[in-house]
Amino acid sequence: MAAFVPPNERNAQSPHLPFGDYREAPLYGKDIISVSQFSREDLDYIFGVAKEMRAMVERIGTFDLLKGKILANLFYEPSTRTSSSFFSAMERLGGSVIPINEVTYSSVAKGESLPDTIRTLECYADVIVLRHPEVGSAALAAEYARKPIINGGDGIGEHPTQALLDLFTIKEELGRVDGLTVTMLGDLKYGRTVHSLARLLSLFAVQLNYISPDILRMPADLVKKLEAKGVSQKEYSTLETVLAETDVLYVTRVQKERFENLEEYEKVKGAYVITPETLKPCKDEMIVMHPLPRVGEISLEIDTDPRAAYFRQMEYGLYVRMALLAMVLGKA
Amino acid sequence: MAAFVPPNERNAQSPHLPFGDYREAPLYGKDIISVSQFSREDLDYIFGVAKEMRAMVERIGTFDLLKGKILANLFYEPSTRTSSSFFSAMERLGGSVIPINEVTYSSVAKGESLPDTIRTLECYADVIVLRHPEVGSAALAAEYARKPIINGGDGIGEHPTQALLDLFTIKEELGRVDGLTVTMLGDLKYGRTVHSLARLLSLFAVQLNYISPDILRMPADLVKKLEAKGVSQKEYSTLETVLAETDVLYVTRVQKERFENLEEYEKVKGAYVITPETLKPCKDEMIVMHPLPRVGEISLEIDTDPRAAYFRQMEYGLYVRMALLAMVLGKA
Amino acid sequence: MAAFVPPNERNAQSPHLPFGDYREAPLYGKDIISVSQFSREDLDYIFGVAKEMRAMVERIGTFDLLKGKILANLFYEPSTRTSSSFFSAMERLGGSVIPINEVTYSSVAKGESLPDTIRTLECYADVIVLRHPEVGSAALAAEYARKPIINGGDGIGEHPTQALLDLFTIKEELGRVDGLTVTMLGDLKYGRTVHSLARLLSLFAVQLNYISPDILRMPADLVKKLEAKGVSQKEYSTLETVLAETDVLYVTRVQKERFENLEEYEKVKGAYVITPETLKPCKDEMIVMHPLPRVGEISLEIDTDPRAAYFRQMEYGLYVRMALLAMVLGKA
Repeated sequence: MAAFVPPNERNAQSPHLPFGDYREAPLYGKDIISVSQFSREDLDYIFGVAKEMRAMVERIGTFDLLKGKILANLFYEPSTRTSSSFFSAMERLGGSVIPINEVTYSSVAKGESLPDTIRTLECYADVIVLRHPEVGSAALAAEYARKPIINGGDGIGEHPTQALLDLFTIKEELGRVDGLTVTMLGDLKYGRTVHSLARLLSLFAVQLNYISPDILRMPADLVKKLEAKGVSQKEYSTLETVLAETDVLYVTRVQKERFENLEEYEKVKGAYVITPETLKPCKDEMIVMHPLPRVGEISLEIDTDPRAAYFRQMEYGLYVRMALLAMVLGKA
Repeated sequence: MAAFVPPNERNAQSPHLPFGDYREAPLYGKDIISVSQFSREDLDYIFGVAKEMRAMVERIGTFDLLKGKILANLFYEPSTRTSSSFFSAMERLGGSVIPINEVTYSSVAKGESLPDTIRTLECYADVIVLRHPEVGSAALAAEYARKPIINGGDGIGEHPTQALLDLFTIKEELGRVDGLTVTMLGDLKYGRTVHSLARLLSLFAVQLNYISPDILRMPADLVKKLEAKGVSQKEYSTLETVLAETDVLYVTRVQKERFENLEEYEKVKGAYVITPETLKPCKDEMIVMHPLPRVGEISLEIDTDPRAAYFRQMEYGLYVRMALLAMVLGKA
Repeated sequence: MAAFVPPNERNAQSPHLPFGDYREAPLYGKDIISVSQFSREDLDYIFGVAKEMRAMVERIGTFDLLKGKILANLFYEPSTRTSSSFFSAMERLGGSVIPINEVTYSSVAKGESLPDTIRTLECYADVIVLRHPEVGSAALAAEYARKPIINGGDGIGEHPTQALLDLFTIKEELGRVDGLTVTMLGDLKYGRTVHSLARLLSLFAVQLNYISPDILRMPADLVKKLEAKGVSQKEYSTLETVLAETDVLYVTRVQKERFENLEEYEKVKGAYVITPETLKPCKDEMIVMHPLPRVGEISLEIDTDPRAAYFRQMEYGLYVRMALLAMVLGKA
């Protein structure tokens, strides 16, 4: 039996199919619930596979690595972006997808518990992506399931595959993560995206800057946890001071509904909109990211700026999700 | 041309693909509308194919028997369980599925008749699974369709594939059907599941016990029909007396909404909840079944009891539906 | 390199796969937004490919021309007919489909713009079919997209693939288009279907007759445009006078809601219902078409008349959409 060569040590351009045997790889048969489950080595491995996926998609579009495997896309709340991304990832790997979007009007409406729904679906599928409005639902599902569960977002809890694709975007766009200055902007209090990303970034030597309205600051307990891990963090109330040194500007939406006092909202909202003017002090090789959807917080004029990475970010998401599905399911 | 060997006479472990030619088999090109259309020989045949499907899924997951065939999953009311099960069955056979869930807001909302919708969809699909809230809708659809229609539940009418999977579960779990004592519990008045199963069981030599609140008793006309077929039936108002002799305990939900008088509901509901205590007088080799979803009528502690067959029941459903799709469509 | 042979000059019965290389064909990489983009040569080409598709489907059901390609079926309003038709077309070509129906409750509900949704989805798909309630939405999407956009209906604007399938139906059923008399009946004011078809027909030498209630007449500006192109058009208020000479009777629904005065509706509605009596003066070789769904405007007794082409029309739609997808995406 040939020795196993981890994907990141193989040449992504190598023509031979199929891939290596992922059953020896870190995630085989595992659930993906939280960013806290990943070591830096895991990330290297995942991103190595994601790079291979990218090369394969660019060369041949789709391949049959997961032929015969079925993904149940179980969405208790709609998310076109996340569900389409997993759908496409599974199809590009030759597998198929059972889309379950109307679950809320169905068995669940009749009062069925999440564990029962999961134990039913795993009779029909090989892996389940779960999007659910309640924190902890993915962990609960994983406790009962025999098949792998991938957390596609559990309320204000976690969205680990988003954080992974964000980190992969940074690595692919800028070539590294260590040594970078990442500036997070907008609603840092409720945004599970920035929380998960910050926690993943704590595995690297980065400088984190936080810029937000006072009522939407990064939660104190998260800041403390990251500090304990040795992450250098700074808080600002305006952008200008940190733009010149920023490598990654991660923009999130400031939602009107978060403000009790609308006057206060009107006062701050302008400060968090990215325009060509905003980017003037920025380096040429920095990137602007956004988890999307955006509603005005990045001006459309930025879209053609090569530093605007948010649509490419969506595409990196495809490769990361392909990598996760392949690794979790092993080779077909 | 080689003689045709029915699947149930072949070795399910035999490695050769493809399967036998189902165009000579009982259901080729037929609709599946009601349990009353099946003879005991048909059931043997279907369950023989279902066993093969199980062996194939366990060995290779998915195969290309129905490659190039398209199933339209036409659901006028949502049913995650039934639609996912057919979806997976078709995909595991290499076919593909058009999911049509939002039909109620679409052409139908514009007033289109069921026959017109069916005659449109059969231009795009090779077989149609229909779930519809009105009794008789599957038969109506079949009258107009050139392609096979499979009844996925028509109101309080029939749900033949559920009854088939229930019977297959009994046969696979206990090795036979003749000679068994089947105890049906809960809402026996409105449950199409127990009605269809009872009618199928009338083809075998079984003892049927019915246990329900007085207002939810098995309909008198059905009891008469079964009697005419020679089925031995007994009614009870409590469980205890029949547990020791029961081989199959088929539990259904007693819905609050069925009671005009809530006091009466509160009085009876406790009597129909299965707990570890309930199962104490039962044999070791009996099984507990439930069509799911359950909402409290079987305690969670039962889930780990090997006699709890309700999740395995879901899986048997996959094999039965694969068998039906393959037989109805013939070999690709 | 072998010379390219257009499909309509090839033998549709020829056994060799794969098809010709559509990357040299008229629509490769293009959007399909409006009927006005097609020349008569384009139509010949599209219909030639559609004929091949029909032959292939009849012979082998499904083939792998678009294996590895993904269609995003993006429906902002439900349309079972159009979405199922594209779904089936893509699956019969070996590709796969991401169905996105709940988009309205999702990112879009959060306020995302159509261009952002499109630029996200094109990261996951190779072609996008867009159904949207607003006129001009398909053109807007195409402006931003790198991948081909196919207009699946934009409000009261256009529905080009419906017009193409209508024209293909006429050609296949009657063997030609030039020299035919096409009588359009019903709501000619708001029906985008008849507008698009009339515009396509202006490329041929046809006689157009319009029959409608006074308040639902063909828009004057469209009549003028067609006149400028040399189309012979006549308006009538009753059917009888033109039936004998009609080759194609194109029926549309007269919706109650269009009338402010219900008495007027009651007065006219009977005049636009097709019964066996209506068809008595008609030729044997004429056809009755309808875009469906119908709600009473063609009596069910007509369904068995060989001249009733409206269900065959649905099937022609499958072949036309297969042709469009194959041509837009090129050979896999």
